[in-house]
Amino acid sequence: MQLRKGKMNGITDVAGVKTGHVTLYEKVNDQDTVCTGVTAILPHDGNLFRQKVRAGSAVINGYGKTAGLVQVDELGLLESPIMLTNTFSVGAVMQGTLTYMLEQDPGIGDTESSINIVVGECNDSYLNAMRLQAVQPEHAIEAIKSASDGPVEEGAIGAGKGMVCFGYKGGIGTASRVAEGYTVGCLVLSNFGKREDARFADFNQVQMDTPDGSIMIVIATDAPLYDRQLQRLAKRCAAGLGRAGSHISHGSGDIAFAFSTANTYDHQSDSQMDSLSFIRDDHPVMNELFQAVVEATEEAVISSLRNAETTEGRKGRMVEKAPLD
Amino acid sequence: MQLRKGKMNGITDVAGVKTGHVTLYEKVNDQDTVCTGVTAILPHDGNLFRQKVRAGSAVINGYGKTAGLVQVDELGLLESPIMLTNTFSVGAVMQGTLTYMLEQDPGIGDTESSINIVVGECNDSYLNAMRLQAVQPEHAIEAIKSASDGPVEEGAIGAGKGMVCFGYKGGIGTASRVAEGYTVGCLVLSNFGKREDARFADFNQVQMDTPDGSIMIVIATDAPLYDRQLQRLAKRCAAGLGRAGSHISHGSGDIAFAFSTANTYDHQSDSQMDSLSFIRDDHPVMNELFQAVVEATEEAVISSLRNAETTEGRKGRMVEKAPLD
Amino acid sequence: MQLRKGKMNGITDVAGVKTGHVTLYEKVNDQDTVCTGVTAILPHDGNLFRQKVRAGSAVINGYGKTAGLVQVDELGLLESPIMLTNTFSVGAVMQGTLTYMLEQDPGIGDTESSINIVVGECNDSYLNAMRLQAVQPEHAIEAIKSASDGPVEEGAIGAGKGMVCFGYKGGIGTASRVAEGYTVGCLVLSNFGKREDARFADFNQVQMDTPDGSIMIVIATDAPLYDRQLQRLAKRCAAGLGRAGSHISHGSGDIAFAFSTANTYDHQSDSQMDSLSFIRDDHPVMNELFQAVVEATEEAVISSLRNAETTEGRKGRMVEKAPLD
Amino acid sequence: MQLRKGKMNGITDVAGVKTGHVTLYEKVNDQDTVCTGVTAILPHDGNLFRQKVRAGSAVINGYGKTAGLVQVDELGLLESPIMLTNTFSVGAVMQGTLTYMLEQDPGIGDTESSINIVVGECNDSYLNAMRLQAVQPEHAIEAIKSASDGPVEEGAIGAGKGMVCFGYKGGIGTASRVAEGYTVGCLVLSNFGKREDARFADFNQVQMDTPDGSIMIVIATDAPLYDRQLQRLAKRCAAGLGRAGSHISHGSGDIAFAFSTANTYDHQSDSQMDSLSFIRDDHPVMNELFQAVVEATEEAVISSLRNAETTEGRKGRMVEKAPLD
Repeated sequence: MQLRKGKMNGITDVAGVKTGHVTLYEKVNDQDTVCTGVTAILPHDGNLFRQKVRAGSAVINGYGKTAGLVQVDELGLLESPIMLTNTFSVGAVMQGTLTYMLEQDPGIGDTESSINIVVGECNDSYLNAMRLQAVQPEHAIEAIKSASDGPVEEGAIGAGKGMVCFGYKGGIGTASRVAEGYTVGCLVLSNFGKREDARFADFNQVQMDTPDGSIMIVIATDAPLYDRQLQRLAKRCAAGLGRAGSHISHGSGDIAFAFSTANTYDHQSDSQMDSLSFIRDDHPVMNELFQAVVEATEEAVISSLRNAETTEGRKGRMVEKAPLD
Repeated sequence: MQLRKGKMNGITDVAGVKTGHVTLYEKVNDQDTVCTGVTAILPHDGNLFRQKVRAGSAVINGYGKTAGLVQVDELGLLESPIMLTNTFSVGAVMQGTLTYMLEQDPGIGDTESSINIVVGECNDSYLNAMRLQAVQPEHAIEAIKSASDGPVEEGAIGAGKGMVCFGYKGGIGTASRVAEGYTVGCLVLSNFGKREDARFADFNQVQMDTPDGSIMIVIATDAPLYDRQLQRLAKRCAAGLGRAGSHISHGSGDIAFAFSTANTYDHQSDSQMDSLSFIRDDHPVMNELFQAVVEATEEAVISSLRNAETTEGRKGRMVEKAPLD
Repeated sequence: MQLRKGKMNGITDVAGVKTGHVTLYEKVNDQDTVCTGVTAILPHDGNLFRQKVRAGSAVINGYGKTAGLVQVDELGLLESPIMLTNTFSVGAVMQGTLTYMLEQDPGIGDTESSINIVVGECNDSYLNAMRLQAVQPEHAIEAIKSASDGPVEEGAIGAGKGMVCFGYKGGIGTASRVAEGYTVGCLVLSNFGKREDARFADFNQVQMDTPDGSIMIVIATDAPLYDRQLQRLAKRCAAGLGRAGSHISHGSGDIAFAFSTANTYDHQSDSQMDSLSFIRDDHPVMNELFQAVVEATEEAVISSLRNAETTEGRKGRMVEKAPLD
Repeated sequence: MQLRKGKMNGITDVAGVKTGHVTLYEKVNDQDTVCTGVTAILPHDGNLFRQKVRAGSAVINGYGKTAGLVQVDELGLLESPIMLTNTFSVGAVMQGTLTYMLEQDPGIGDTESSINIVVGECNDSYLNAMRLQAVQPEHAIEAIKSASDGPVEEGAIGAGKGMVCFGYKGGIGTASRVAEGYTVGCLVLSNFGKREDARFADFNQVQMDTPDGSIMIVIATDAPLYDRQLQRLAKRCAAGLGRAGSHISHGSGDIAFAFSTANTYDHQSDSQMDSLSFIRDDHPVMNELFQAVVEATEEAVISSLRNAETTEGRKGRMVEKAPLD
């Protein structure tokens, strides 16, 4: 029995969450096509450094170059947008996001502490001339500034421009669920799997020489949870991947983040003490939140295919839109 | 595209692996019925302390009392049978298994180091009067001594006697897959889920007041892998659980072990050095092994239901056999 | 600059914390002497299952058989006394502690969920005929019932009866520090190191054929912290061990627990929500708490030697009291 | 009893290991001084992507922005130089190092898989105008290209230019130990602690408003070990930090890497199988390697102070050379 979907069936159903994309698509020469981008997920509209959100992560498979997990794990806090891009652009996107935050807040790294930037990535080198490192720091800033709380644009857009999933065009997908009045939203950057692995459709097999791929999963919720509980949410994404058809292959960086927009944490305080309210782990609503994560993850993967379009990339390679209704 | 099943479609398809059960079933009085047991999985027939096997584990959800993981994680070695029982019998089974090993080897804890016993558990208190602590150390010894390399007895037997899964009678289940000549076997102790969660059948819903439950998953393989790689196998069980229908609920201790019968490790050596051969992580067979884990986990769960029989437990509670063919 | 010591300079300086010992010491025959015991640490005087305390752990080195960590890590809660004993008595002590808790609370495992018992251990087989498994479940119950909030009895007592540390008689040690009005107490079961490793004294070297040993470290505090923060405290014990002279050797199970007596958690609640107050991670008092952990750990190790007496064990082996003032 | 020091008492005592620095030091205006740099540690002289080394890491405290750990943990392999810099230059150094590796190997990200870059950092914002992001990708390339296998230049150089340790000038420090013919080398980027914390000298206290700081620790060895064992080495650095005087403070990103130059791993192979030889965990030499790590870590920290010079940074701030002989 599935949970009810949110209004837009996307991560922006969680109040305050915004997403933005910058897409780079240009044929450079016969061999090289830039076919990539940047996607930004903002937990809220304010200064994220000053008003951090509780967060947790789960490394489902660690073949990946994601940056920023160490501090999220130690402190249970997210203080930057979550940025997604291709594998070779993590550095540029980190720099751009840092520059954006420094401009927003003159205290960071001067009178205040440093800041931790989270950047996830998938390898889009089948379609994208990734070695060209086309993504510039400015693209990250642009993605952040363009973020909106409207429906998420899905498919071959932003960081999803060059991604391939189940042998078809993948990329950005989203879905949401409502559990006892709380909303759980999921946004994925899908880039894994072979056609015969899909469990949501009966695809014709085809021989493709794509790399193993990866998936980045971002879970947002307005349910009041703290870091340990958000790690629990992030871990449940593995079950959703299994349902879609993933075997969590060797070369796949499968990484999940979860954050809550409730219980924000002030960067600075005159008080020694802080407090938080949270849902009890043993309350039935917690299991519904887990279910929401599993369902939204599976659906977001499928949605990333459904909304992607046939795309031509480097070396004239063509990746088709999946035959889904 | 599913992988080929092993000859017996069970964990004992992995050469050398043996399983044994002791079942306790007795109506003590109007209220209390003992409905529980012990299951032993032996990686090989010899002295496991002297010839350890490489192993890894994954805590998918840690609401559980499993013993022995700390040392498996540190050293990547298993030196005892893997024992399964109910939550309140971990101590007794640990003691019994220790006694068995001490009898087998007079050096342990005298001239040699101590030994690490692995015991997994699920909560069978819906059917079993768990507070009676009916399992005695001797039952563990008996389960080990009765172990055979024949087909695994499944369902309401051994540690599975009192377990409930998807609202029907669960317990011991097994399955196996063959990938490139290597065998992957899975044995589960299933004890989780509500009827409406099942994805392999369309069960009628029913209101049951069972605890959240748990699942113990044991993966055996003859593929030459080492500890880090076996952890990777263990982690993939989460995808298999997701397929069966689990949301990995709060109160569920979902724990996976994986061991390889290749690359045994001598307890003692005159040499400073040791060596091992292993499958490269980037070889395609590794992904097939991952697939084998996912498929065998899902099927073992279903098989635990298919092979269980309607069982009456304490307080006259009845748990039905699932309507599966 | 050292922090101030607590009144008794022990873990029972943390209000509500109690410790109890049962010591077993008997020459069985020419070869075998029982020289071991059980130590109980109670976070508070009430029903620990109904009023759980926040807790965290750190596996500094995982060559050990400690039980109960999996659930503490998942839920951040401790719901039993912390029990210490020898390596081969973990099962018996787990059973005894379970029996004690079941007697205290008829709901556990019946109308309520199961319970997680934490048992730590060190290998005392140099002095103790560990293979005899002399510790019985009743000894655990006795240790709990005898617990007092007075000064901790240290040295060759309880679980410390047969332990050897830096080649001298070790065992139970304790110390405490006060930081900004909060108390941090430490209790260790010391059983590691060679004479030449000690950094707090210049011991004569001697050839001893003791096993690598282990150390269990329990940190208690009344500072209001939650699970993630208590894990941070537990991790700092490694620095204290380094100061005492440990290299954290291969065969040493070095495991730290930390719990807070503030912020107890009710087992059951009619409310969906819970809340907690805690010290901010970035407040200077947090660093003082870390310092308190490091200092108290080092001193507790030294205190375990200072308070131990020369002890004769199995095979006529004698372990001397360390020449400390 | 200390182990013997290596010939140069530095990480380059491990055959094949090279280190290189690029130092940026420029007064930009009255307020801003660039006082930072980049340090590169190369496990060997060849193509690191094609000939990876076994590696492990330990997050002693995770308040840090280190990149690249996720994949090292999953695969146990290091395939890039280890780069050190300031907190806000992780992105630039990642990009530069990537560019260097792409130039060295035209297959990466084209016919071959992607590559994982490891970058560690400390916050040098007390002396360095970190917000200016002065480090450029080219500086990383320059640091790599300048690497030599001679004695490590220590103190206020490379990434160490702006670091502060125990209230005095810190930065790059190194030391080595020889255990049974194997060499263990340590290089640190030191940036933590208050004067009164030091245990190797009796410093006068002073009020300084420095951030909490951090320390990056790199352990190299020619001992044949594999990933799990290298994680064990990395974990022991915490004991060395404790000896130097660290309480592992809240705001300190204390991260240790360890790699072995033995047992390199070919990126590609026609064979399904690989093999490795390694020291047995239970052989006494393993404990000597652990001891070597503890000793070399402590000494490298002290050496970073001893070799640093009084340095003027931004806002006219002056950090003195420590009064060590």
